[in-house]
Amino acid sequence: MKRFEHGGDIYRNNVRIDFSANINPFGIPEGVKKAIINDIDKLAYYPDTECVRLRRAISEKENIPVENILIGNGAADLIFAVVRVLRPERALLISPTFSEYEKALESVSCDIKYFTLKEENGFALTDDYLNHLTDTDMIFICNPNNPTGNIVDKNLMDKILSRCRQNNITAVVDECFMDFVPHGYSVRGDAVVIKAFTKLYAMAGIRLGYMIGDTKIIKDSKSVMQSWSVSSLAQVAGVAAVCDTEYVEKSVEYINHEREFLIAELKKMNFIVYGSQANFVFFKGDTNIHKELLKKAILVRSCENFRGLDGQFYRIAVKLHEENVQLIEALREAVQWQKR
Amino acid sequence: MKRFEHGGDIYRNNVRIDFSANINPFGIPEGVKKAIINDIDKLAYYPDTECVRLRRAISEKENIPVENILIGNGAADLIFAVVRVLRPERALLISPTFSEYEKALESVSCDIKYFTLKEENGFALTDDYLNHLTDTDMIFICNPNNPTGNIVDKNLMDKILSRCRQNNITAVVDECFMDFVPHGYSVRGDAVVIKAFTKLYAMAGIRLGYMIGDTKIIKDSKSVMQSWSVSSLAQVAGVAAVCDTEYVEKSVEYINHEREFLIAELKKMNFIVYGSQANFVFFKGDTNIHKELLKKAILVRSCENFRGLDGQFYRIAVKLHEENVQLIEALREAVQWQKR
Repeated sequence: MKRFEHGGDIYRNNVRIDFSANINPFGIPEGVKKAIINDIDKLAYYPDTECVRLRRAISEKENIPVENILIGNGAADLIFAVVRVLRPERALLISPTFSEYEKALESVSCDIKYFTLKEENGFALTDDYLNHLTDTDMIFICNPNNPTGNIVDKNLMDKILSRCRQNNITAVVDECFMDFVPHGYSVRGDAVVIKAFTKLYAMAGIRLGYMIGDTKIIKDSKSVMQSWSVSSLAQVAGVAAVCDTEYVEKSVEYINHEREFLIAELKKMNFIVYGSQANFVFFKGDTNIHKELLKKAILVRSCENFRGLDGQFYRIAVKLHEENVQLIEALREAVQWQKR
Repeated sequence: MKRFEHGGDIYRNNVRIDFSANINPFGIPEGVKKAIINDIDKLAYYPDTECVRLRRAISEKENIPVENILIGNGAADLIFAVVRVLRPERALLISPTFSEYEKALESVSCDIKYFTLKEENGFALTDDYLNHLTDTDMIFICNPNNPTGNIVDKNLMDKILSRCRQNNITAVVDECFMDFVPHGYSVRGDAVVIKAFTKLYAMAGIRLGYMIGDTKIIKDSKSVMQSWSVSSLAQVAGVAAVCDTEYVEKSVEYINHEREFLIAELKKMNFIVYGSQANFVFFKGDTNIHKELLKKAILVRSCENFRGLDGQFYRIAVKLHEENVQLIEALREAVQWQKR
């Protein structure tokens, strides 16, 4: 498996149910589909480079000034932009975590150090991390973390951001999965925050994310991005999505319920489950489980190519109940087959 | 007007007919709309990071190996990518030209020199340019050039690319408008070539472009781009567009005919027309014409913020005959009004 390969590769696998990408199982909201189809003829025009309507909609929903919002072609576009503009010489990454931070930092030849999360701590971030917040220009924290699903303890996060301020370190906190967490928190105002429409609104194929930061970082980051990074379609879809609060409430409740179901079933099979506070579950099992599942056209995310993990670890998205049941049954068969 | 502002800003102007963006007036091909609507539920999935289907379709149409094709989120995405990967210390740009080259080069703090096209040469690139192909790492040539619409003489282009090879200069040739030119030519194989779906297929709001280059530059450029730069929707739309050869033939014939109509009418009004071999017309008139036209909700591109031009120059897209007639009539009134 290549280093920067991700989940969700339904293009090179025969897949009936995809548990490898962490996407809302309810699919694209109806209102978003309608908005796209209504505006289809407008796709001939260049997109609004300022994304005014979408920024206003997000501003109202999140109660932040428009000037503090930058829209990107997916969260990854903004991760690359903030790295390009700050061009850190040294950065500290957590391992395991989402690999686009590393890819973006490598693209500016940054010297990257890694803080490795320990299995004995359940892959949680610990106070020990604070001691590493010296001699670095930039940190990325994915909260909740992908692939482990752990949330950073709020007290620890406060200490981290305070240490960053003292030591002049830019902290970028990726809150792409925070909306799925029942009692989550945001550090916007205290760090550069990145969010996405991808997961919450099942819009992975549309590409839409946003960054919340002070006016300087927003302006500077925009200056190193191409003028029309965000398609018209993504802007139209985003406005429709932001307005659909009912979809979000229904999704979050359902996903939380199903996540607990999956965790309980995995534990019954003696798998060890860690973190898992978002819309996905992270567990340790036997290697090759994913190959057995793929024979049944079920794709899960082997975490083998995550820095700091190996082939024993898996990440599965929380999907619709009937799909989750199928996964559990297929897993049970795979485990029994391996025991023979 | 700000430096990096572009045409097509229908979002901050009251516009009935937009001549400021160079987009095929036939609008998005029907087949592309159908493909998008058919695949709308698939937008929930992550896009194919390898863009396999689209690269195959382009490969067959253009008769180039798949390995030599890189897809981007619009041509601008690829302009930024190739600049990021090569990180030129010195570059030579032509002025006036499309401003995203400058924006991309500035984002890597490149030292940019400018070769200024002269009005007395009709803004054509001349042999004199060859003498400047020393002490530089990278050049961009827009062919035909935006906003002038001039094509570089084929013999001169051969000399330029040969000089670049001798002097180890990377030549990037932007052929986004070449498909509109009746007897155009491509330098693919001899330079890095950038093309877009934006103009030819009226897909500006979708964002889709591609780069043709040797396998090394393709691979390296991909390595500095985010994993999911190209949306699923753009990929689906691109495949449908590539297959629609009838739309292209019809468009190119119509646009050529209408361009000649516009040029003839502009000349009748004593405007000076230059270059104009693509789907747009570049002319010199009085300043403030665009303001008079905007009172009639007609938007044209004042070239005031192009480096090397001033408020006397305008660029207009070739649109449908009835729209072109309306523009000519409005221009006639504007000119008469100014004469009073």
